Amino acid sequence: MPKVAIVMGSASDLGVVKPAIDTLKEFGIEYEARVISAHRTPEEAHTFASTAIERGVEVIISCAGKAAHLGGVIAAFTPLPVIGLPIKSSTMDGMDSLLSTVQMPQGVPVACVAINGAVNAALLAIQMLALKYADIMDKFVVYKTNLKEKVMNDDKKLQEELK
Amino acid sequence: MPKVAIVMGSASDLGVVKPAIDTLKEFGIEYEARVISAHRTPEEAHTFASTAIERGVEVIISCAGKAAHLGGVIAAFTPLPVIGLPIKSSTMDGMDSLLSTVQMPQGVPVACVAINGAVNAALLAIQMLALKYADIMDKFVVYKTNLKEKVMNDDKKLQEELK
Amino acid sequence: MPKVAIVMGSASDLGVVKPAIDTLKEFGIEYEARVISAHRTPEEAHTFASTAIERGVEVIISCAGKAAHLGGVIAAFTPLPVIGLPIKSSTMDGMDSLLSTVQMPQGVPVACVAINGAVNAALLAIQMLALKYADIMDKFVVYKTNLKEKVMNDDKKLQEELK
Amino acid sequence: MPKVAIVMGSASDLGVVKPAIDTLKEFGIEYEARVISAHRTPEEAHTFASTAIERGVEVIISCAGKAAHLGGVIAAFTPLPVIGLPIKSSTMDGMDSLLSTVQMPQGVPVACVAINGAVNAALLAIQMLALKYADIMDKFVVYKTNLKEKVMNDDKKLQEELK
Amino acid sequence: MPKVAIVMGSASDLGVVKPAIDTLKEFGIEYEARVISAHRTPEEAHTFASTAIERGVEVIISCAGKAAHLGGVIAAFTPLPVIGLPIKSSTMDGMDSLLSTVQMPQGVPVACVAINGAVNAALLAIQMLALKYADIMDKFVVYKTNLKEKVMNDDKKLQEELK
Amino acid sequence: MPKVAIVMGSASDLGVVKPAIDTLKEFGIEYEARVISAHRTPEEAHTFASTAIERGVEVIISCAGKAAHLGGVIAAFTPLPVIGLPIKSSTMDGMDSLLSTVQMPQGVPVACVAINGAVNAALLAIQMLALKYADIMDKFVVYKTNLKEKVMNDDKKLQEELK
Amino acid sequence: MPKVAIVMGSASDLGVVKPAIDTLKEFGIEYEARVISAHRTPEEAHTFASTAIERGVEVIISCAGKAAHLGGVIAAFTPLPVIGLPIKSSTMDGMDSLLSTVQMPQGVPVACVAINGAVNAALLAIQMLALKYADIMDKFVVYKTNLKEKVMNDDKKLQEELK
Amino acid sequence: MPKVAIVMGSASDLGVVKPAIDTLKEFGIEYEARVISAHRTPEEAHTFASTAIERGVEVIISCAGKAAHLGGVIAAFTPLPVIGLPIKSSTMDGMDSLLSTVQMPQGVPVACVAINGAVNAALLAIQMLALKYADIMDKFVVYKTNLKEKVMNDDKKLQEELK
Repeated sequence: MPKVAIVMGSASDLGVVKPAIDTLKEFGIEYEARVISAHRTPEEAHTFASTAIERGVEVIISCAGKAAHLGGVIAAFTPLPVIGLPIKSSTMDGMDSLLSTVQMPQGVPVACVAINGAVNAALLAIQMLALKYADIMDKFVVYKTNLKEKVMNDDKKLQEELK
Repeated sequence: MPKVAIVMGSASDLGVVKPAIDTLKEFGIEYEARVISAHRTPEEAHTFASTAIERGVEVIISCAGKAAHLGGVIAAFTPLPVIGLPIKSSTMDGMDSLLSTVQMPQGVPVACVAINGAVNAALLAIQMLALKYADIMDKFVVYKTNLKEKVMNDDKKLQEELK
Repeated sequence: MPKVAIVMGSASDLGVVKPAIDTLKEFGIEYEARVISAHRTPEEAHTFASTAIERGVEVIISCAGKAAHLGGVIAAFTPLPVIGLPIKSSTMDGMDSLLSTVQMPQGVPVACVAINGAVNAALLAIQMLALKYADIMDKFVVYKTNLKEKVMNDDKKLQEELK
Repeated sequence: MPKVAIVMGSASDLGVVKPAIDTLKEFGIEYEARVISAHRTPEEAHTFASTAIERGVEVIISCAGKAAHLGGVIAAFTPLPVIGLPIKSSTMDGMDSLLSTVQMPQGVPVACVAINGAVNAALLAIQMLALKYADIMDKFVVYKTNLKEKVMNDDKKLQEELK
Repeated sequence: MPKVAIVMGSASDLGVVKPAIDTLKEFGIEYEARVISAHRTPEEAHTFASTAIERGVEVIISCAGKAAHLGGVIAAFTPLPVIGLPIKSSTMDGMDSLLSTVQMPQGVPVACVAINGAVNAALLAIQMLALKYADIMDKFVVYKTNLKEKVMNDDKKLQEELK
Repeated sequence: MPKVAIVMGSASDLGVVKPAIDTLKEFGIEYEARVISAHRTPEEAHTFASTAIERGVEVIISCAGKAAHLGGVIAAFTPLPVIGLPIKSSTMDGMDSLLSTVQMPQGVPVACVAINGAVNAALLAIQMLALKYADIMDKFVVYKTNLKEKVMNDDKKLQEELK
Repeated sequence: MPKVAIVMGSASDLGVVKPAIDTLKEFGIEYEARVISAHRTPEEAHTFASTAIERGVEVIISCAGKAAHLGGVIAAFTPLPVIGLPIKSSTMDGMDSLLSTVQMPQGVPVACVAINGAVNAALLAIQMLALKYADIMDKFVVYKTNLKEKVMNDDKKLQEELK
Repeated sequence: MPKVAIVMGSASDLGVVKPAIDTLKEFGIEYEARVISAHRTPEEAHTFASTAIERGVEVIISCAGKAAHLGGVIAAFTPLPVIGLPIKSSTMDGMDSLLSTVQMPQGVPVACVAINGAVNAALLAIQMLALKYADIMDKFVVYKTNLKEKVMNDDKKLQEELK
């Protein structure tokens, strides 16, 4: 059963979304990934969101660009937390996607991450699951330590380079 | 039977939306006005939009602020033209509403008017109806003439004032 | 007789505008396409707009970039609905075109679509015509269904890919 | 033991933050609220964040304005999910707070909500807790239903008013 | 015969435009002031602009807000230099007016001044006239000197105050 | 003796500025072109501006990017009209240059044209000179007619292409 | 002899600038305060900046709004570090002042602080002086400790209030 | 002992930061360069900043992109002046980095330079050191003169080219 569902508004978003999928795999977290459009397949969005709990889903990551309504539409139909990943499209440098995702009206939050921040969308889902699953928390703590070590190694390399 | 439906995302939008209603009344056009939230009453939005044609509605005006998804959600469920009226809320000067309304993805347009441009939203609906109803076209031509005369009178008054 | 007129401010806009023409053709809708500049050929704009009804035109799509006045200028001279297509130029990421098109003053609306959203401009024209012509409405309903199926197929393909 | 910690960068933010506290109380969720500045009391921020798990905290809400670093600083020191609430200050209409909160670099997400969206910050924390605590999920489902009813009542009132 | 024509898009702009008129008066320059709307009285705009030279006008100041097309429309119909004064309206803080005025396409310039910068619009007209009329140049040089003295007096007063 | 002076803040701006020079040449207008930096050669800017009238200069075109102070600095030292050409640099899409050029304080206007709008900067200078020199006015009227014909030809070509 | 010079572009900026003066006084640092306009009194700006070292000035704080050239103009004429304080004026929410101040071209930096951030402008000057004057460093360390204590007291008060 | 410390948030920033290092070398100023992340290695940031004085550091240059907290985090832990260099990342054209760096809250300034303005960050550090070290001041005065000569040479070359 998938713990995380990743929904993207268009198949063309897969390139940006892929690192989120890879991050979930790296943590060994079951997921489902779907192409569902808030505007072109609204019934699918409705069905997908309102049955997510039944499928075992605990967190939903919604990825969309331009007037990015997908996260809000899904949040409307489920009590599960929805993470919004605003995608940069060919104009407006992602500002349209960001504002459409983050500026949700009172009552129906979407947890917005950075424009094209797919890895962070997955990590945020992982942090939410980690509240409940101790093994995921353990893995996340290790992940944070590895991140730290990577930066510290980069720092050492820089010292070498600049000598 | 209403020819135009006006939907607003929150009862608090009525102040901004009112001039649209007044303009429709001025043209003697039957309308319905509803408070429906894309995020808080999504099923109502679905039902409202997918039954609009049955109720006789020909054009829908959608008014919403912030991450303004209402127009897009309604456009998803009806082939009728949807006019989006972005509403300025307490932050971002309406830019969030504007981009969420106008930057619709390919396949599902929303006809966006100016931020808080309620009268223009109604006039655009009237222009669409005027394609079909000759009497509405006649009234709209008169309206345009009156607008013109009003500006020309203002011009005359200015000449007086500046003398 | 053309039902839709497409006007662009410069011959260099044709690349962006082309998908609108293709969409009208796909729906079998008669159209005329013109290069008319609000600033360089203003008399032509005036003549074009004020005689549009006589030529049988019912909806006008206006495409322009930068300080995009073309839609407003045309709307000034005709009671027909005018759809504004803001075009992204070499600076400002289309924001100048968008604001010049959408922020029309009270009394003279322009129905603005997304920056470079040529297909949506055509679809919006089609939706307006569909109010009057039942066959166009039928085609538009099929178009919406096809869009839906395309997304659903993309969704299926994604499931295959991710297996 | 507090399940949610609310940290604000300045005592002057309390007015904006208050609805988040009220929402947590309404759900009967234990919380702690602190004034901690990323820049003026950085050691406190460090201590607060790195001991949050020990105090029983499961979700942290960080509220800050201008160059709003507080959420990121806290996320740096804890594996718990951090919700960022960007606060509108006297210039820039909250855009500075929003971008400083949402545009987090890869590896350390902050879950950003709307500018001044205190209620949504609390609701998002509640949704995260609801993954683990069935009674909180039950209350949240009721909350969503109440929201819906409120909008439907507003809709009914509007029908009365417009008669 | 008026040397400068000031056109405003709406009678409600007079408050912002007034200091331009006052500045012209202060320099003893004959002017005409008109309310002409690019969108509501386009024929008047056409007539006004194309006959300006005949009336003796040498420079035109165009004042408009929102999708501020007036300057461009006038520049289309006259070879005279057109100064654009973007007016701040109720949303967008004047950014829409500024971009609609300044981002003119190649071939038809508008000389844009600051948002609500009415005095500067008049001074720029005066500088243009001063190229031709030596007495206006003399007055402008005096004006610049007075400006300088005013700042120097303010500086002295500040020294007093801070003692 | 040069009638127009073109000053650019950096030799690297020449590519953007070149069409202004070409336009002046096309009109047979004597010009001088200089590299002068408001910040790196401020004394040269001072000398250049305060002696411009003596050299016969009647209009100055100032071209600069980023925090584009050059136009303002020159306007401070001469009563001649100064045209500001904001140049797009590697970040901010020219918005920094535009605002630094157009938002001049009361008393010292700069006539701002579009970002990278070099041809328009030259044409605006030409329009100012045309107030005084009848032959330049004649040439400008012809230029405007040619522009018009070019667009009308483009329109004809489009009709051919679309047949 | 003044160690810090504060220059403002207009006497009307004094309200915003005052807290910088108060902060310098609080640290017992000698200062001079001047009204000098980059555009209206450019010679004074030149003289002021090029003689600052002779007067004993070590750091200059420049305060200006709109197209805020003052900092850059002063930095052009002195090797002393110049701190730029962008002032929010009646339009653009200070964005014009910020970009005009911070986006300085290579070779001539201005140290920009937050919009209307007068206290921080003074503190930055103090930090620069503290590199050289041990007593100022001592006072600044105490200041930082007091800031910290103020926030910690606010935190305690909040705990009381929320009990 | 290093007089200047340059810290970058990620090894990938080195390309942008390099000209700052080169400028310090050109002035013969001892420096240290580090990769330290406010979010991934926060303890290192803390240690680095709070021990900077002991290592002899007098000025710190902090380089970061997106939600650029590094400068603020370092300024929190040291009384030394901190120069913030906002780095343009793949979205938002550097606006996120700029606002996160410059809009610091009262009490903890960061001296912000232009987006990607690495040379200016180094020059500003040099100007601060020059207050204390007469030889650095001498070199900086020469540097400014060289800059001036370079522009004057460019000006001469342009005259040749345009002949």
